[in-house]
Amino acid sequence: MTPRRVAIVGLGLIGASLGGALRRRGDLVCGLDADTAAERAALDRGLIDEAAPNLAAVTRGAALVILAVPVLSIIDLLPQIDAAAPPEAVIMDVGSVKEPIVAVMERLPGAARTIGGHPIAGKELAGPAAADISLFVERAFVLVPHAATSPDTLLVAEELVRELGALPTVLGAGEHDRTIARTSHLPQLLSLALALSLQPHDEALAGTGLRDMTRLAASGSSMWNDILLANAANIRAALDPCLDHLNELVRMAAEGDSGALERLMSRANGRSAQIAGAVRA
Amino acid sequence: MTPRRVAIVGLGLIGASLGGALRRRGDLVCGLDADTAAERAALDRGLIDEAAPNLAAVTRGAALVILAVPVLSIIDLLPQIDAAAPPEAVIMDVGSVKEPIVAVMERLPGAARTIGGHPIAGKELAGPAAADISLFVERAFVLVPHAATSPDTLLVAEELVRELGALPTVLGAGEHDRTIARTSHLPQLLSLALALSLQPHDEALAGTGLRDMTRLAASGSSMWNDILLANAANIRAALDPCLDHLNELVRMAAEGDSGALERLMSRANGRSAQIAGAVRA
Repeated sequence: MTPRRVAIVGLGLIGASLGGALRRRGDLVCGLDADTAAERAALDRGLIDEAAPNLAAVTRGAALVILAVPVLSIIDLLPQIDAAAPPEAVIMDVGSVKEPIVAVMERLPGAARTIGGHPIAGKELAGPAAADISLFVERAFVLVPHAATSPDTLLVAEELVRELGALPTVLGAGEHDRTIARTSHLPQLLSLALALSLQPHDEALAGTGLRDMTRLAASGSSMWNDILLANAANIRAALDPCLDHLNELVRMAAEGDSGALERLMSRANGRSAQIAGAVRA
Repeated sequence: MTPRRVAIVGLGLIGASLGGALRRRGDLVCGLDADTAAERAALDRGLIDEAAPNLAAVTRGAALVILAVPVLSIIDLLPQIDAAAPPEAVIMDVGSVKEPIVAVMERLPGAARTIGGHPIAGKELAGPAAADISLFVERAFVLVPHAATSPDTLLVAEELVRELGALPTVLGAGEHDRTIARTSHLPQLLSLALALSLQPHDEALAGTGLRDMTRLAASGSSMWNDILLANAANIRAALDPCLDHLNELVRMAAEGDSGALERLMSRANGRSAQIAGAVRA
């Protein structure tokens, strides 16, 4: 049997990790990145079989095309990818925001073979140097079919997710974007704002708590720029209750209302334990 | 040489970890906790030599008395500790807020032998079961002498910190409390508010970022109640710039101002790297 050809456009942390994981299961992986150093690193680390010079070359003969560039670039590239890829190829993206992406997919000539995807996996480190072929194992991997996605396309995507050792979760684009605003984009904002709130020399009193709370703020800014722009309304909606809680906690403290403060903190303790229980180390 | 006797009042994570670290270096450690189960656990884990029934018993013959109870209890207990401890004993607390504590110390009959302390070390887990005798190794340990602290008392405290493998940092109470509001109390608030902002079933889309950002929210609520109450004004002052940054980031995203967003995120990247560099794993 000829190995399946997979095209990966964008060899950052996610794209390169997907490449490595798919190569390991026997796929022939062809990669493309605007940054030739990323292509070289992905080749050197054995995460892709070959690098292609352009979209036509990377998609040639592909059974599956994965877009792993920042969200606004996914939106830009989708029409070209749809035009270049073989008619039978399934096209999936792995961006952190789904509504604007599936809105474009739905209107493509090849809409039926397109589907949104989002692996709930990542690191604050970027690029193929940080890639990890086990990144997706036991992590949720959201699949977002749109109105025009064919049942076969969904089946191919679900099978792919299982091959990665990840857990397929089918969601609507709106529900994904509202939920991920709370579970990923809001934490990112909090980490950024915390890092920005520190004053020179504060690191002298930094402990592991501060280090962990500012870790996300080290993430690549171009990827996050696109996410924040593309999901701004949902992020605003997620931030407001958080600001209310912050002000409420500080007000209770200023008023010395220990009873209310301890009740609120106990609720937070419970939510924290629930999250820790849901995410394996 | 008779071993030095050390009294530890409060056998939570910090008190029990101090007990174990000091026993290891040869001190005879006597502990006291309102919770007899904590005393038993500390004895069973070899973190203290003996448990005492009351303040008079725990401080008997002590060369050093360490108060490791929540901040408001430190304030309550200081006069009794000063009355009970042998005249030559040095008295140090390890609370996360220093101004209200050293304000009490300064007015005690034995003011000269008192000094504030704060190890920048901790975990989200509480109690002697989570104690770790290496908790303080290579961590900053702030010492806060007040106007009446004798030079000898400061020397004893500095020596103690070095014996723990920690790095002594002498600071004024006000500077400590303003800085720690940004580096520890603000991260705690953000983690609590994030946990409280999540909706039921959000854990389905939880990744390691969310887990790490809500980890602090698992911390014991009575300890944090006291910290938030005792440092409320400084925490309010630390929170305001953070709220400004949050609103600024969301505004830039809503306006599609990528240039401003990327500049701000780059600044945050730099601060994050600085913190990570300052805190060893």
